[in-house]
Amino acid sequence: MKIDVLSLFPDMFTGPMQESIIGKAIEKQILDIEVTDFRQYTTDKHRHVDDYPFGGGVGMLLQAQPIIDAYEDLAVKNQDQGIEKGRVILVDPAGKTFNQQVAEELATEEHLTFICGHYEGYDERIRSIVTDEYSIGDFILTGGELPAMVMIDAVSRLLPGTLGNGASSVDDSFSTGLLEGPQYTRPADFRGMKVPNVLISGDHKKIAEWNQKESLRRTYLRRPDLIDHSRLTDLQKRLLREVREEEEQRQEK
Amino acid sequence: MKIDVLSLFPDMFTGPMQESIIGKAIEKQILDIEVTDFRQYTTDKHRHVDDYPFGGGVGMLLQAQPIIDAYEDLAVKNQDQGIEKGRVILVDPAGKTFNQQVAEELATEEHLTFICGHYEGYDERIRSIVTDEYSIGDFILTGGELPAMVMIDAVSRLLPGTLGNGASSVDDSFSTGLLEGPQYTRPADFRGMKVPNVLISGDHKKIAEWNQKESLRRTYLRRPDLIDHSRLTDLQKRLLREVREEEEQRQEK
Repeated sequence: MKIDVLSLFPDMFTGPMQESIIGKAIEKQILDIEVTDFRQYTTDKHRHVDDYPFGGGVGMLLQAQPIIDAYEDLAVKNQDQGIEKGRVILVDPAGKTFNQQVAEELATEEHLTFICGHYEGYDERIRSIVTDEYSIGDFILTGGELPAMVMIDAVSRLLPGTLGNGASSVDDSFSTGLLEGPQYTRPADFRGMKVPNVLISGDHKKIAEWNQKESLRRTYLRRPDLIDHSRLTDLQKRLLREVREEEEQRQEK
Repeated sequence: MKIDVLSLFPDMFTGPMQESIIGKAIEKQILDIEVTDFRQYTTDKHRHVDDYPFGGGVGMLLQAQPIIDAYEDLAVKNQDQGIEKGRVILVDPAGKTFNQQVAEELATEEHLTFICGHYEGYDERIRSIVTDEYSIGDFILTGGELPAMVMIDAVSRLLPGTLGNGASSVDDSFSTGLLEGPQYTRPADFRGMKVPNVLISGDHKKIAEWNQKESLRRTYLRRPDLIDHSRLTDLQKRLLREVREEEEQRQEK
């Protein structure tokens, strides 16, 4: 997959994109990330890329010219390398909310371009080259770079070969629709805090049931919106009923 | 504000935390960010920080010892500098969803610690030092570093003095409860795409109404869940009614 990023702060990407699993995906040539500073493309003699909004308002807006020219120049270069124009994602708080389903959908593409804003917003006409607009959540950031990295990370880990263990990209929170419950590793007793007996019982059926129940408990307590009752198995329904009763009793105490 | 970060990939933070507005907040000494590699604290002779889960399961879990020892060591060092133990945030997909309200709440604290996971998850006992658990959204990432940076960015920009223009931290999408509508900057005609006449009319009342209406339109089309009807003014109610009628007519065509 080829990923182009248009940003005024290309150096922000160096650390996150070199380290960890994304760096490995680049090394393995599963992924090619190119970050372009669109300030290079401005025709303004002072090299400005922003200007005041028409009609008044606070702050500055990114102008259409530098971003669109940068995008078009990259499109030509990519085409020379056989990379067709792919989806163009505007990173914007007013976009749709990015989630795992979107990540899975984007992971099937061959070319993505992320446009990272800064300052108060974008000139509307930038949207003429945009195919998708995404926000990563209902909070305000200083720029689009971090959300772009988040989306790139979520997409990249789904590319075949990125994660060493094929199984690791499933079975996490959200893949199963439920949050992961408590997990324990060695030592069995850490400063008096002990691993639940069931987990060291060797009884695989009981362990599986405990894991399901605690996963349901965490989801019930923190993110009940994630529980799709129509998708629960009979066992899960019974476990959830037990969780509810236990939690109601706990609250009464 | 002092922010401690516990991470296995401290180099990931260098670019994002030096560039842009966060870098300036650090320069202005509004913010002090210290990233600690908790692998330094492992007592394992092979310097491992992870191990297999009790009861079976895919992947590795972060052990309690290195993270808790790192946290306690930092707590002593911070206390020597007069920094009290503050909130400890576990970055975890099973946490509550981070949003602007949480950012505003965290921005009033004097000390925050972010614990960034990797691999399949945390040993449950790490939660013994944790005060809050946050996720930035319903997607899976390779580690907790990017979400920690996102939260640090959202919090830092709210600290007094970080943003040059005091007004810039309000009036964005989410601060007003609505998404920002289209905005335009120069030139008035960019490759045939023109700025709406109203914005160059000089009629401030009309411009304000247009801005409100287009903000309502974008919110209605993309994130109707954000519209709190009880908070709308009479003007906004009328504009939203117009938007609905216009959009219904557009769909019929």
